[in-house]
Amino acid sequence: MTSKETIDKVLSEVDHGLQNSLDRLFDLLRIKSISTDPAYAAECQKAADWITNELTGLGFDAAARPTPGHPVVVAHGPEQPGTHVLFYAHYDVQPVDPISLWDTDPFNPQIKEKDGRKIIVARGASDDKGQMLTFIEACRAWKAATGALPVRVSLMLEGEEESGGKNLPPFMKANAEELKADIALVCDTDMWDRTTPSITTMLRGLVGEEIIVTAADKDLHSGMFGNAAANPNQVVANIVAGLRAADGSCTLPGFYDDVAELSDELKEQWAGLGFDEKAFLGAVDLHTPAGEKNRSVLEQLWARPTCEINGMIGGYTGDGFKTVIPAKASAKISFRLVSGMDPKKIRAAFRAYVQSMLPPDCSVEFIEHGGSPAMTVPADGALLRQALAGLTDEWNKQAVITGSGGSIPVVGEFKKILGLDTLLIGFAHIDDQIHSPNEKYDLESYHRGIRSWVRVLGALAQ
Amino acid sequence: MTSKETIDKVLSEVDHGLQNSLDRLFDLLRIKSISTDPAYAAECQKAADWITNELTGLGFDAAARPTPGHPVVVAHGPEQPGTHVLFYAHYDVQPVDPISLWDTDPFNPQIKEKDGRKIIVARGASDDKGQMLTFIEACRAWKAATGALPVRVSLMLEGEEESGGKNLPPFMKANAEELKADIALVCDTDMWDRTTPSITTMLRGLVGEEIIVTAADKDLHSGMFGNAAANPNQVVANIVAGLRAADGSCTLPGFYDDVAELSDELKEQWAGLGFDEKAFLGAVDLHTPAGEKNRSVLEQLWARPTCEINGMIGGYTGDGFKTVIPAKASAKISFRLVSGMDPKKIRAAFRAYVQSMLPPDCSVEFIEHGGSPAMTVPADGALLRQALAGLTDEWNKQAVITGSGGSIPVVGEFKKILGLDTLLIGFAHIDDQIHSPNEKYDLESYHRGIRSWVRVLGALAQ
Repeated sequence: MTSKETIDKVLSEVDHGLQNSLDRLFDLLRIKSISTDPAYAAECQKAADWITNELTGLGFDAAARPTPGHPVVVAHGPEQPGTHVLFYAHYDVQPVDPISLWDTDPFNPQIKEKDGRKIIVARGASDDKGQMLTFIEACRAWKAATGALPVRVSLMLEGEEESGGKNLPPFMKANAEELKADIALVCDTDMWDRTTPSITTMLRGLVGEEIIVTAADKDLHSGMFGNAAANPNQVVANIVAGLRAADGSCTLPGFYDDVAELSDELKEQWAGLGFDEKAFLGAVDLHTPAGEKNRSVLEQLWARPTCEINGMIGGYTGDGFKTVIPAKASAKISFRLVSGMDPKKIRAAFRAYVQSMLPPDCSVEFIEHGGSPAMTVPADGALLRQALAGLTDEWNKQAVITGSGGSIPVVGEFKKILGLDTLLIGFAHIDDQIHSPNEKYDLESYHRGIRSWVRVLGALAQ
Repeated sequence: MTSKETIDKVLSEVDHGLQNSLDRLFDLLRIKSISTDPAYAAECQKAADWITNELTGLGFDAAARPTPGHPVVVAHGPEQPGTHVLFYAHYDVQPVDPISLWDTDPFNPQIKEKDGRKIIVARGASDDKGQMLTFIEACRAWKAATGALPVRVSLMLEGEEESGGKNLPPFMKANAEELKADIALVCDTDMWDRTTPSITTMLRGLVGEEIIVTAADKDLHSGMFGNAAANPNQVVANIVAGLRAADGSCTLPGFYDDVAELSDELKEQWAGLGFDEKAFLGAVDLHTPAGEKNRSVLEQLWARPTCEINGMIGGYTGDGFKTVIPAKASAKISFRLVSGMDPKKIRAAFRAYVQSMLPPDCSVEFIEHGGSPAMTVPADGALLRQALAGLTDEWNKQAVITGSGGSIPVVGEFKKILGLDTLLIGFAHIDDQIHSPNEKYDLESYHRGIRSWVRVLGALAQ
């Protein structure tokens, strides 16, 4: 039973320690832990070691555990009665290109002002180093103010979330006994809006595929071979173009077979959220939803699968012009899945489609970039209600339950491998520009994020 | 009147001077005159200066003349009665990417062996530095052996052939009086096969276009914005896919309106050339013509227009995966034109088509990369017959008249601005890998190319 006095004491500790908390975040943000690029492997190790060192200092039994890829940091607080939580976040970050669009060095964090609010600008400020540290700094405040944590806490912090995360599921399987807990907590999501805290209970899954189409055994001169030679640029474009119908839907056979229509209850609940489609798209200078017609943007984002072309390259792409027919061209394509869809089935349908689109003389290589099903958290558990209460206390506004367009594959693995439900609690905002130049995290997100976790941990101890 | 004795004396000079001719070619090949990339502007100037110096040494009144881009080298031999030829070639080269596919440094020329033949390997060895020097070295041999050239020779050597060549036509207009001659000679084409010399009398024109499609004002997370936000990768792919029909033809409205069917005479003549479609495609590991159905490959290459995608890029294209919806994506597209087609009309049709394919929220920027009509040389002139005779003498085989799939825009400008017909005489081979890694020029092409020009210049003096 956590008293209001105790909570206030811990919150006061957070407020007084904020500058030190920020200094620690800046230390972590300076580490270039880009997981998808092998050139940054040593930086990923460095980030894992940095976190391990911090957690050890807080009394955790912590270690950066090796995998065939980047390390997984696992830490356990002392055994104690009551709820046992397993906290998850990731220390790796997205690449920073196009670097020319950053106003400041992505790995030299800065406090700036934007629309009258203080923001922390750096790659990973929001996704996910800032979010990760809100939890760790909350643990630090509990320790400093009371000498102990209100519940038993374990942490599992990965370094491959932005690069397919293939090594985590085997790691979890190999260490399933050690990682057992009562509930998983994940900090990698948004608040509903600037004043409304939220817990996400629906997450889309992801299938990532890369295709490399090859024709001639070398680049050709388009004057000497044009018309006569198959052009991989054209073939890739034809494949990509054929994936989406004019009405915005995905054309893969069977793509929507396992997709349930939104229940009237959820439809009503989401309508009540007052989502402003115009403002959502307007924030990035868009005005017209590009997805399936006759479905709200919120439904498109939370409850419908997608097919998006994340990358495409072939031939001469430098300055000027080169009249070449390239030997190969490639595309990176991702599908977001909703509840009921099987990643294996979607991947197979995609590959069969691509094969069917190959003209003579062309071959294709497939590269798999992660696959995970969507997940839904039961909306009626006691721990969920306790966590909502903690958030509501901090923000003086009823915390809401939402879906999310993004994919956090580990949530499905928590359920499958460890039998754990997950509470997704995050403090990011839609304008954080995650995965984009000038990524930021509001100073308020960081400060009140730490305070929120103080309260949620306290509430889970009830 | 040139005697056989004189010709033999000059040819003997060529044979004895071959090593020195090669050394000079290697000097020129070491200069990185990539015209399309502004980073190599000084190297283009260096190449122009090198050539000017060589020509001055041969008694030409030569200068590297400034343009808004790279210099044009103009040189005039002493006035003399009889035929006056204007020789054209280009000293600029294509970019060298992908550099990883070169077996040796593209700017460190090497003599190697391939299929029992000696080859010169370097960027520009064939296109067009090697070909250019066959003519200059022939002039050198004439000077050394006889003290003079058999006809009056002027040269115009440009540095922007590989990058759109926008500055040459205004230069020719501004200097039209000075550049007048009786016939233009161009050395930038192939022999018909390894033993058969040829003069090209049909060249395709070129329209080069680049499109940059923009949607949101920044890169977006495909989980948070997928479906809802327009994806420029998808839009560019749709545009590209829509350009070619399933039967291999180009779909632009009016594209074939001004294209004449091949005459029965030419059809018969070309059939007699014994072109081996299987061997042509097989040389680059292809087997099935990709262009318009029911037309021979030779007709596709020489007498039909093309639409080819030379470059395409958008989103994340590095190692691994990044779930991004890019703010923009682009493609570089070229159309080869045949006789009768208007470059302006084709460009306008393309731009109208692209505009028609733009969904809401997307805008497009067009970048023009050169435009030139196709050209046809009258096949019955006296100078053409004399030149064919010179080539026939050197190769002991009847020289043939051919078409070419490539575009040499300057040929159209010679006609339009200077009123000159052009004889396209070259010694390159289909396997020279021009515009590709490991570009080469056969040592035989270089040696007998010089000898051929010795004979052609002699024949033109008849």
